[in-house]
Amino acid sequence: MSDYEIFELGDFTFLSGATLRGARLAYKTYGEPSPAKDNVIVYPTWYSGRHWDNEWLIGPGMTLDPERYFIIVPNQFGNGLSSSPSNTPEPYDQARFPRVTMYDNVEAQHRLVTERFGVERLALVTGWSMGAGQTYQWAVSHPDMVQRMAPFCGSSHTSPHNKVFLEGVRAALTADGNYNGGFYGERRLTTGLRAAARVYAGWGFSQAFYWQHLYERLGYTSLEDFLVGFWEGFFLDDRDPNNLLTMLRVWHSADVGLTPGFNGDTEAALASIKAKALVMPAEKDLYFPPEDEAWAVERIPNARLRVIPGVWGHFAGHGSNPEDVRFIDEGLRELMAS
Amino acid sequence: MSDYEIFELGDFTFLSGATLRGARLAYKTYGEPSPAKDNVIVYPTWYSGRHWDNEWLIGPGMTLDPERYFIIVPNQFGNGLSSSPSNTPEPYDQARFPRVTMYDNVEAQHRLVTERFGVERLALVTGWSMGAGQTYQWAVSHPDMVQRMAPFCGSSHTSPHNKVFLEGVRAALTADGNYNGGFYGERRLTTGLRAAARVYAGWGFSQAFYWQHLYERLGYTSLEDFLVGFWEGFFLDDRDPNNLLTMLRVWHSADVGLTPGFNGDTEAALASIKAKALVMPAEKDLYFPPEDEAWAVERIPNARLRVIPGVWGHFAGHGSNPEDVRFIDEGLRELMAS
Repeated sequence: MSDYEIFELGDFTFLSGATLRGARLAYKTYGEPSPAKDNVIVYPTWYSGRHWDNEWLIGPGMTLDPERYFIIVPNQFGNGLSSSPSNTPEPYDQARFPRVTMYDNVEAQHRLVTERFGVERLALVTGWSMGAGQTYQWAVSHPDMVQRMAPFCGSSHTSPHNKVFLEGVRAALTADGNYNGGFYGERRLTTGLRAAARVYAGWGFSQAFYWQHLYERLGYTSLEDFLVGFWEGFFLDDRDPNNLLTMLRVWHSADVGLTPGFNGDTEAALASIKAKALVMPAEKDLYFPPEDEAWAVERIPNARLRVIPGVWGHFAGHGSNPEDVRFIDEGLRELMAS
Repeated sequence: MSDYEIFELGDFTFLSGATLRGARLAYKTYGEPSPAKDNVIVYPTWYSGRHWDNEWLIGPGMTLDPERYFIIVPNQFGNGLSSSPSNTPEPYDQARFPRVTMYDNVEAQHRLVTERFGVERLALVTGWSMGAGQTYQWAVSHPDMVQRMAPFCGSSHTSPHNKVFLEGVRAALTADGNYNGGFYGERRLTTGLRAAARVYAGWGFSQAFYWQHLYERLGYTSLEDFLVGFWEGFFLDDRDPNNLLTMLRVWHSADVGLTPGFNGDTEAALASIKAKALVMPAEKDLYFPPEDEAWAVERIPNARLRVIPGVWGHFAGHGSNPEDVRFIDEGLRELMAS
């Protein structure tokens, strides 16, 4: 019993040169394509997120209304539903899963969109966090295909500080005594997963969020209850360490300048974007700060910056609080009307 | 051969009720007390810092000039020089070292200052980070003794977010497969220490510091070189995990409101301070943000806030760059002249 579909990619060759035989892309769609196929939205997933984690932004009365749009949510490689270390047979299993890039994720999604659905134009690509990274990559990889883009709480290339944050998560996860270079088999690395969760906790929400005890609004009764109940629970919820490390490497290496043809020139890649862009960083996001997105917006021909105000930090884009949901939804509404 | 002195505390009872027999306080002094003993400054150490790590702020021509002031730098418990898990014999060794608080550190220092030096008034207490925490504690524990205080990049009580940051460091350190509940004996926990270093790295300096590649000014040739050369080197440099955990707990539990007599009332403790205070947080400090210090300054009768500008984040107070050294030194100069 699953609520999603599989697109068989066949032999999929990653940018690194590795080829995964029988690669699979898991996705879910919402709504129906119009006869002209001019109502298609792609909305990729975030770090460890699954398609159902995106559903807070989709629904009747929302901008992403399935009555109006055909919304495709592709699961990124490594998230446990699409091809991932945890579901790939030997020899490309566990720590031998191919290195993946943002570019690879978007190429797989492009095949889904064009081959399965015959779609040649996207009304919008949008996403949170690594979903924002895939949004940027879509606009650079397929500039004539993407009409609008709305990355929120993400970036076009991972900043040095963001990489340092990721290094902390990676180091905590792999410090687990049973890690064994990633070949841990059926063992469950709860020590490493819980440690990674605690490292992540300080970054996900802002200082002010914690100062104001806003975790109580999420139903947690103390700081420690939030760390165990939300954060450790989050990382223990069917999240495999090699899957997390695969996605972490995608994030760490993300840079639209690495798209073939741009020779590492991030600014040239941004300048090549043809989509109309609305970029929404969160005011107190600790790893995707608004300044970095202001830098990107200055380099995209047709882009606006709109900062999500408030203290929720990166998790402004997680769908956890109604104010930020409304802000993002209204931004999308304006963009779609333009 | 050592460049410091030992004050024998004898049987020292901590707030927790544990008594350490033969407890020792390591310290170093700079300059000489005046006949009236009215030129005494106490300058406690930071998390894992030793007295020599404070010396960048002391010297001829600086405000903390040994020609003028008698400067006492006490090493806090757990830093490896004063009594610490690493240098205490059984049974209070390793993971059984007593729980220490800011209050305990200051009580031990108070005995040093009064018993060894016969000093009853302090012209100034100052310090960075946990040294700032000890500065606040001095002013609350001994309000009639402390004339001036200048905590920089620290706080009077550890904020919830700051605790979360510390939880990440702790979790990474203790994830090491050889940790064994803190009873690791002679084994060196390099995996945990390196992981804790990488977690710390994202917090110590600001996003903008990394964006601007300012680690190059410190002599590092790449981001990874900075992570290995500076950060991992820092944590591997004679730093013992149980020592780090002892100090981490001091920090985590820090709150002047827990001073006996205040029943947990942080605001009442701050209101009781008689010292003239200059409080200097750093503009982009990620775990002691200026807003938190503004909150404290509003509650101290005679206090001013002066934010250290720039992108060095918490390490503005580490003595790593001349601009911030000058800013702090000038703040101290004004305070001492007032």
